[in-house]
Amino acid sequence: MMKKSILSTLIASAIFIGLCQAQVAEDFKPSSLNQPGQEYPMVNSQGYARFKIVAPAADSVRVSLGLGGKGGTKLAKAEDGTWMGTTEGPMDEGFHYYNVKIDGGKFNDPGTLNFYGSVRWESGIEIPAKDQDFYALKNVPHGHVQQVLFPSPSTGTSRRAFVYTPAGYEKGKEKYPVLYLQHGWGEDETAWMNQGRANLIMDNLIAEGKIKPFIIVNTYGMTNEVKFGKIREFKIEPFQTVLINELIPYIDANFRTLANKDNRAMAGLSMGGMETKMITLNNPDVFSYYGLLSGGVYTPADITDKSKVKLVFLSCGSKERPDGVRKAAEELKAAGFNAVSYVSEGTAHEFQTWRRSLYQLAPMLFKK
Amino acid sequence: MMKKSILSTLIASAIFIGLCQAQVAEDFKPSSLNQPGQEYPMVNSQGYARFKIVAPAADSVRVSLGLGGKGGTKLAKAEDGTWMGTTEGPMDEGFHYYNVKIDGGKFNDPGTLNFYGSVRWESGIEIPAKDQDFYALKNVPHGHVQQVLFPSPSTGTSRRAFVYTPAGYEKGKEKYPVLYLQHGWGEDETAWMNQGRANLIMDNLIAEGKIKPFIIVNTYGMTNEVKFGKIREFKIEPFQTVLINELIPYIDANFRTLANKDNRAMAGLSMGGMETKMITLNNPDVFSYYGLLSGGVYTPADITDKSKVKLVFLSCGSKERPDGVRKAAEELKAAGFNAVSYVSEGTAHEFQTWRRSLYQLAPMLFKK
Repeated sequence: MMKKSILSTLIASAIFIGLCQAQVAEDFKPSSLNQPGQEYPMVNSQGYARFKIVAPAADSVRVSLGLGGKGGTKLAKAEDGTWMGTTEGPMDEGFHYYNVKIDGGKFNDPGTLNFYGSVRWESGIEIPAKDQDFYALKNVPHGHVQQVLFPSPSTGTSRRAFVYTPAGYEKGKEKYPVLYLQHGWGEDETAWMNQGRANLIMDNLIAEGKIKPFIIVNTYGMTNEVKFGKIREFKIEPFQTVLINELIPYIDANFRTLANKDNRAMAGLSMGGMETKMITLNNPDVFSYYGLLSGGVYTPADITDKSKVKLVFLSCGSKERPDGVRKAAEELKAAGFNAVSYVSEGTAHEFQTWRRSLYQLAPMLFKK
Repeated sequence: MMKKSILSTLIASAIFIGLCQAQVAEDFKPSSLNQPGQEYPMVNSQGYARFKIVAPAADSVRVSLGLGGKGGTKLAKAEDGTWMGTTEGPMDEGFHYYNVKIDGGKFNDPGTLNFYGSVRWESGIEIPAKDQDFYALKNVPHGHVQQVLFPSPSTGTSRRAFVYTPAGYEKGKEKYPVLYLQHGWGEDETAWMNQGRANLIMDNLIAEGKIKPFIIVNTYGMTNEVKFGKIREFKIEPFQTVLINELIPYIDANFRTLANKDNRAMAGLSMGGMETKMITLNNPDVFSYYGLLSGGVYTPADITDKSKVKLVFLSCGSKERPDGVRKAAEELKAAGFNAVSYVSEGTAHEFQTWRRSLYQLAPMLFKK
């Protein structure tokens, strides 16, 4: 007995140690989001990220990315005076924001591109995903992404939006449906095309014949300032005015759109989901397809006139609260709505969840 | 005599000290290129720049911007642990790239937006200029800036270009001339719209009726890698193939262009000028308007068939080599060319020179 027990313990310990000290595969390659010619940051086939920062006289360098609750990854000074470090474990697949703390100041990693998140331009890194093919740059016809500056009398300025037009738009005469797609808190109108790769997701879906081509419009949703943690003080009216009274008329006047409710969708991620919910419910004759991506749920009681809603799409990552999303979709279905839930496996409140959500949502839009 | 001499010396010294210790006007305001909500960097009415960097445990913080030959501006640690400093003198008007050295590492200023220059995303600051109105964002109809991904068999990928289409392009049926406009060494296809504000310069010129609307196309000109200082090893063929055989056909197929030599111009700044010179001379039937912006000159002997060239535009800043540009234009004029030189007053090899050059060049294009 004693012998067996010791043996069991030894085996169990060996397995445990094996799990904890899993070999880090030394097949690191530059992240696909690095600046031209930059070797670091690197990622390996298991999803580990490795960083290298040049700051020979610094006392402390720490990267905000790493395992939860540990405050990121502390870099160590290498012999050549650079600072290096590898995340303690594999990261979730997809895009992550991060920054670098150097002697107490917050900076970006000079090795990689910047992406607007957390109300600042942050460093970005891409952990290769098993399903990365759906947002890869391929040799297919590519749509254009247009920066437009539309007049906004309510805010007294010209505001920026990005408009994805499908490949062939310029040559054709066809009119297209439109999806108004919003970013999250601290992000801006650049997020869906840069971090989200929405244009490439669309290009690939269209090239494979999986969707009817449509236009996507992104604009800035934090028209009034919202401090983090004060989301309850958020008032929808300023942004709603910009979107409904200023942007939509501009898009319908300047692009070949099917300018009616049946051909208009609104979706948003996180805070953009909250905005989507408020604006779609306030404007039942403007949109007929609704999407909340890690951005809450609708209940049957929220929606006054069921006949005006063609689709309610609810999604989140499996590391968020997938049961809430699934349950809400079931309740909507039971109440007679065309409701769909989607849970992104193995991802959290991050862009991989939202890329996959757009990939799922797009084929369901504008079916009628 | 003695007395007078001392008096003269005293007066001279007083004037000299007065000049050197000119009062720095304390009317600093955030630079117009700051990230949302960021107070620093700041600029004052005289063109001084003031920086503030948070890095409480750093030993040394230096900004690369400042008076020539002094290695930039050394910041000093303030009582609150931040690092602050003001340039020793006023900066030239317009846009400047810079970076921040922290304990020996090169980073960006978290306060401001990034712009691609020197083969990296650099910090940018805007010194208000007396003539800034011509590139200001105004309440006029705005053209769109489209990101296109065009097929490039010669480089085996989809390549990016930005295309400015004038306001009203989407609604109309008119065909437009096209200016192919190139960035400088270490920059990319984002430079002319971001740093150069080419879209706003065009919007304003068109709104004032000063030019016939045309399309502008920017793409990446460093198709083969060029190391700084090795510009003589540069081979034009890879980029020429992309531009002439791939990009121009794509633009003519996807946009409403006047697809002929008489309605096609090429111009470029710095290295982009060198490329413009080589490509226009190699392809006399493709372009008829040529512009070199701080990018060298043409001599009458360079151009084989005078009848094919409608305009040669040569420019630079007054702090560069304006006499060379003026003399080259005179020689071309004497040889019967329609040649124009323009010198930007008080600016060097920087974007204010090139913004002004575009503003001067645009009304001369596509006159016939």
